[in-house]
Amino acid sequence: MSLLVVGTMAFDAIETPFGKSDRIIGGAATYIAYSASNFVTPIKQISVVGGDFPQQELDDLAARGVILEGVQIKKDEKSFFWSGRYHMDMNERDTLDTQLNVLANFNPIVPDSYQDCEFVMLGNGVPAIQHSVLKQMHNRPKLVVMDTMNFWMETAMADLENLLKDVDVLMVNDSEARQLSAQYSLVKAAKTILAMGPKYLVVKKGEHGALLFHGDKVFFAPALPLEEVFDPTGAGDTFAGGFMGHLASTKDISFENMKAAIIVGSAMASFCVEKFGTTRIKEITKEEINARIAQFVDLVQFDIKLV
Amino acid sequence: MSLLVVGTMAFDAIETPFGKSDRIIGGAATYIAYSASNFVTPIKQISVVGGDFPQQELDDLAARGVILEGVQIKKDEKSFFWSGRYHMDMNERDTLDTQLNVLANFNPIVPDSYQDCEFVMLGNGVPAIQHSVLKQMHNRPKLVVMDTMNFWMETAMADLENLLKDVDVLMVNDSEARQLSAQYSLVKAAKTILAMGPKYLVVKKGEHGALLFHGDKVFFAPALPLEEVFDPTGAGDTFAGGFMGHLASTKDISFENMKAAIIVGSAMASFCVEKFGTTRIKEITKEEINARIAQFVDLVQFDIKLV
Repeated sequence: MSLLVVGTMAFDAIETPFGKSDRIIGGAATYIAYSASNFVTPIKQISVVGGDFPQQELDDLAARGVILEGVQIKKDEKSFFWSGRYHMDMNERDTLDTQLNVLANFNPIVPDSYQDCEFVMLGNGVPAIQHSVLKQMHNRPKLVVMDTMNFWMETAMADLENLLKDVDVLMVNDSEARQLSAQYSLVKAAKTILAMGPKYLVVKKGEHGALLFHGDKVFFAPALPLEEVFDPTGAGDTFAGGFMGHLASTKDISFENMKAAIIVGSAMASFCVEKFGTTRIKEITKEEINARIAQFVDLVQFDIKLV
Repeated sequence: MSLLVVGTMAFDAIETPFGKSDRIIGGAATYIAYSASNFVTPIKQISVVGGDFPQQELDDLAARGVILEGVQIKKDEKSFFWSGRYHMDMNERDTLDTQLNVLANFNPIVPDSYQDCEFVMLGNGVPAIQHSVLKQMHNRPKLVVMDTMNFWMETAMADLENLLKDVDVLMVNDSEARQLSAQYSLVKAAKTILAMGPKYLVVKKGEHGALLFHGDKVFFAPALPLEEVFDPTGAGDTFAGGFMGHLASTKDISFENMKAAIIVGSAMASFCVEKFGTTRIKEITKEEINARIAQFVDLVQFDIKLV
């Protein structure tokens, strides 16, 4: 079952309380693809990079089953660049620099060979561009999941609202859910957001886990308590990749299987934060992933007798 | 199996974004006793109140199996009073007023009839007073659990450190665990705190659930996502009451049963916040409690097949 991913492939420069990176590989679609490729292939990527994006990285992705036909390479331009700083509370970050470069005029084109994709992951980006990809699909995919962020709520809310009507799952963090719904209670926020279009809402809460809302149902997924969150960059995208990878590989989009998909996503995200950038998610093995998922099962397992 | 509880019985005045209370009944030992009495009796209470504390409230507690022989009534003095304000993020609060009154010279005396208590809950209070109660027990209880707060870390750290060597379980919130250990990571904080004496550490995280640490083991308990947290006052004490009530009634202090006890505590706390003060925890029934615990089971239940 093919998975279509649209999003940035970029450079990041990151500062955390534990260290500082040079310009390293980043981008939502990069993390999503690396993460999802542990569960499903091919992954059909849509993105844009400049002539400065390393061929080696494209080769690494291709070797993992990521199809790059939909990745535009603009030889004479530069890739998107983001620089940020995290503090001890890794749920907050300051943006130090953003250089749009190739993203400024990105017009995604869905190749014909991508039309068979039944699973679509719209990584965080301009809502109109996310929507454009979806509109280019001749048949309605089986499952469309989107990520977004506060910035688009402030600058492109009308486009975002239009897009929300056409997706199945919205995946945001807690502050984004509160901003989008204008509700502080996440239960009330979920009701408001589910009325805007998506049938499912995933609220990512970093070290506090994640919540899945669907109708009146709710699932509370744990996060693995870690000694150190070395670098949270890409953790949300890695989560999305694990979530989509599990759903696309099992071809089951029930609420019950989405719960399992959130656990898979959480397990993948727990690897991502252990090293800078994509380092850790490029090196993990299937055995490590299965062991980590088993840790999540242990983490929440309890037995209670009602008297 | 008798449960000994020491802590405040007091008056509170509370402001939240949803309303404001007059002077209402509060105090750590009050909440603990009301909560625990759903699971175990007798509860042998140690506290101090002034002549202004309503006889009706003492009668209500007695009717639920709470023994008040160890509660000193100082007719000519006033009960402890606390006033505070909560904001939308209910994990933070401002203290508006604190009047120690009877607490200023509280010298707890453990009655002979309390010597059979094998379970001891040291509610938040002056560490030396908590320790005094423990030292008056002729035999080492089967399980000693204590709560504390930042204030004692700043004003009575030496006493607190002495006490920590003599208890089995420390129960604090996340910011308190960080302050006590001088570690930001809760995993590292737990290692530091477990080296200070307690064999178990419970970290309460409000709407984000709770963590239980023991040796290298960790358990992640969810919180029930609620439409509204009406008043969080007493939620931590109500949690402690459910936790101790379950352990004392099952007489099983294994790690596995402590996980169940945390779920019971979390379920009780989820009731507490639904109305101002002790209103909700005085009215809930066994059927409501069992239904709420079943909701917690559903909330985290998932099934995943490793491939």
